[in-house]
Amino acid sequence: MEKKITVLPGDGIGPEVVAAAVRVLQVIAKRYKHDFQLGYAAIGGAAIDQFHDPLPEETIKMCKESDAILLGAVGGPKWDNNPAELRPEIGLLRIRKTFDLYANLRPVKAFPSLLDASPLKREVAEHVDLMIVRELTGGIYFGEKNRTQSEASDLNVYTREEIERIVDNAFALAKVRKGKLCSVDKANVLETSRLWRQIVEEKKVQYPEVTVEHNLVDSVAMKLITNPGHYDVVVTDNMFGDILSDEASVITGSLGVLPSASIRSDNFGLYEPVHGSAPEIAGAGIANPAATILSVAMMLRYSFNLQDEAAEIERAVSSVFDDGYFTADLVKDKARALTTDEWTDKVIAE
Amino acid sequence: MEKKITVLPGDGIGPEVVAAAVRVLQVIAKRYKHDFQLGYAAIGGAAIDQFHDPLPEETIKMCKESDAILLGAVGGPKWDNNPAELRPEIGLLRIRKTFDLYANLRPVKAFPSLLDASPLKREVAEHVDLMIVRELTGGIYFGEKNRTQSEASDLNVYTREEIERIVDNAFALAKVRKGKLCSVDKANVLETSRLWRQIVEEKKVQYPEVTVEHNLVDSVAMKLITNPGHYDVVVTDNMFGDILSDEASVITGSLGVLPSASIRSDNFGLYEPVHGSAPEIAGAGIANPAATILSVAMMLRYSFNLQDEAAEIERAVSSVFDDGYFTADLVKDKARALTTDEWTDKVIAE
Ligand SMILES: CC(C)[C@H](C(=O)O)[C@@H](O)C(=O)O
Ligand SMILES: CC(C)[C@H](C(=O)O)[C@@H](O)C(=O)O
Repeated sequence: MEKKITVLPGDGIGPEVVAAAVRVLQVIAKRYKHDFQLGYAAIGGAAIDQFHDPLPEETIKMCKESDAILLGAVGGPKWDNNPAELRPEIGLLRIRKTFDLYANLRPVKAFPSLLDASPLKREVAEHVDLMIVRELTGGIYFGEKNRTQSEASDLNVYTREEIERIVDNAFALAKVRKGKLCSVDKANVLETSRLWRQIVEEKKVQYPEVTVEHNLVDSVAMKLITNPGHYDVVVTDNMFGDILSDEASVITGSLGVLPSASIRSDNFGLYEPVHGSAPEIAGAGIANPAATILSVAMMLRYSFNLQDEAAEIERAVSSVFDDGYFTADLVKDKARALTTDEWTDKVIAE
Repeated sequence: MEKKITVLPGDGIGPEVVAAAVRVLQVIAKRYKHDFQLGYAAIGGAAIDQFHDPLPEETIKMCKESDAILLGAVGGPKWDNNPAELRPEIGLLRIRKTFDLYANLRPVKAFPSLLDASPLKREVAEHVDLMIVRELTGGIYFGEKNRTQSEASDLNVYTREEIERIVDNAFALAKVRKGKLCSVDKANVLETSRLWRQIVEEKKVQYPEVTVEHNLVDSVAMKLITNPGHYDVVVTDNMFGDILSDEASVITGSLGVLPSASIRSDNFGLYEPVHGSAPEIAGAGIANPAATILSVAMMLRYSFNLQDEAAEIERAVSSVFDDGYFTADLVKDKARALTTDEWTDKVIAE
């Protein structure tokens, strides 16, 4: 298979974890005889420094000509006081909208060997295996904004089509997973939520093998902590998804190992770790590359439909943890920690 | 002191827990020689059944003539399929708006003897003592809603005055607590959040003894679980407050013991437990009355400025837990559980 991938290392530890993930990608390419052509471009703070633009035209152009995007992370204290349009995360919001990457998938799965790092009791977190499906290009993020001296407003708006397509993604995922879908809204207060709930009800007849429940966002915010094992696929809007997916990311104690995908209808997608740019450890060579490596696995699975290759990476990462190899973020005794490169070597060896 | 209190028992376990709290209130009245006059009225499902209205005029009238309101809980499966305007929780939304109860205070404090019931590890939850201050009468809850065949929208809107008053409440609370305020917004995306952040910045010069941090809602959703002990007072808007206060309510494993206050500028207020109407155990006499009893303590403190009386109730509740007395929701071995009345007797004895 021949594929073009645009690599956007970004800021902080972004370049390091991306480099590690690219090594894994190249091993897979060689082994399965694929031809992955990589092109590098700038985003976020790095792009602001170089081009005075968090998402330069050159970057957009290269992404347009490729089949998928691999992103490291954006942001850092250096740009924290920039004016709104020159903030690194604007690059992220714009790339999502430019490429219509409406389906954000964030799987959260417990690795038994990492549960000591979880804030939750082992018995609460141990069987967690859920996927948050967040609508990523609509809602209050992109609705009309207004500001006067005495007032400010943001419009939360969803069209039927926007909801239908993300709900379809979620049902399709639930179908190939454990067959359970939880749709999250605030239908007792919001009109957008009532439309959302209605569409989920309409769609469910097309997916008889999936069990659906509707749940209010406040109640899910509780249950994600008291009983996270209850969930399989959780689908929700952009704003609720932002909050709940970050909340869910701490359940298993392994924020550093969580991947994400942001996908368009034709399966073109952007893949990035859930964690941030961690400027405090940037350049030290100690960042955990697991989340980015697992993001590459998601790319293989969702954009290229290479299921075996994806599963192989996931298996390798799992085994390395089970064998007791960790980067510094996951062990108390830092002397036992592997560097980014050493840990990546273990994955490649597997 | 002479005070009129309107009691709204509501649905499910509401009447039982309210009866217990009223007993405690009467003991306090006798002991400190106060004259608390109680009037009872209907709200929620009970009011729908009786008056075909979740917040009848009679109830509004009685509340207007009183100094504070004590509420049990509203809702239940009986009314779940009612049309929108005949849903029990509409009574709640309307009473908040009618009486301009804009400041919702939700303290979350760990009781060492209850931590076994927490989903979090003991060391994560044990020093938690925080207060969520939620704006309760503005934002996306009450902004303009629209709905067409193909689209739905909700307007999130805040005036400067609405934000100023809730931020003032939060600063005043932080000042008499641990002097730390965390303001939660989504300023990297929302215009309302940018106004919010600006107002917090303006106000902070008036409260030099309070340390302020701004934090994004997604990041707080994580940190509330990974490091809840970090927080003192957390202030946020109506929608974020709904989600974060419910999330925070599970930290200490004691949802059944969390009180809340919803207050107006002149200290008139509505007091209610955080938990719901628990229809599955209604009428069994086994509900945990602690949250409602502690809500009465908040009433004494915030509406009547009776600090000693409030502290005495809080001390009594704490002692009863420390002595090992619990209702069924808090013990594994149900044979050891006290009934609502027995547990209330213990509090009164203290
Ligand atoms: C950086 C920010 C705008 C972004 C969001 O809110 O979507 C981030 O929190 C995320 O979840 O990817
Ligand atoms: C019942 C509902 C409308 C209400 C809210 O969202 O405010 C409830 O969740 C609460 O927090 O008191």
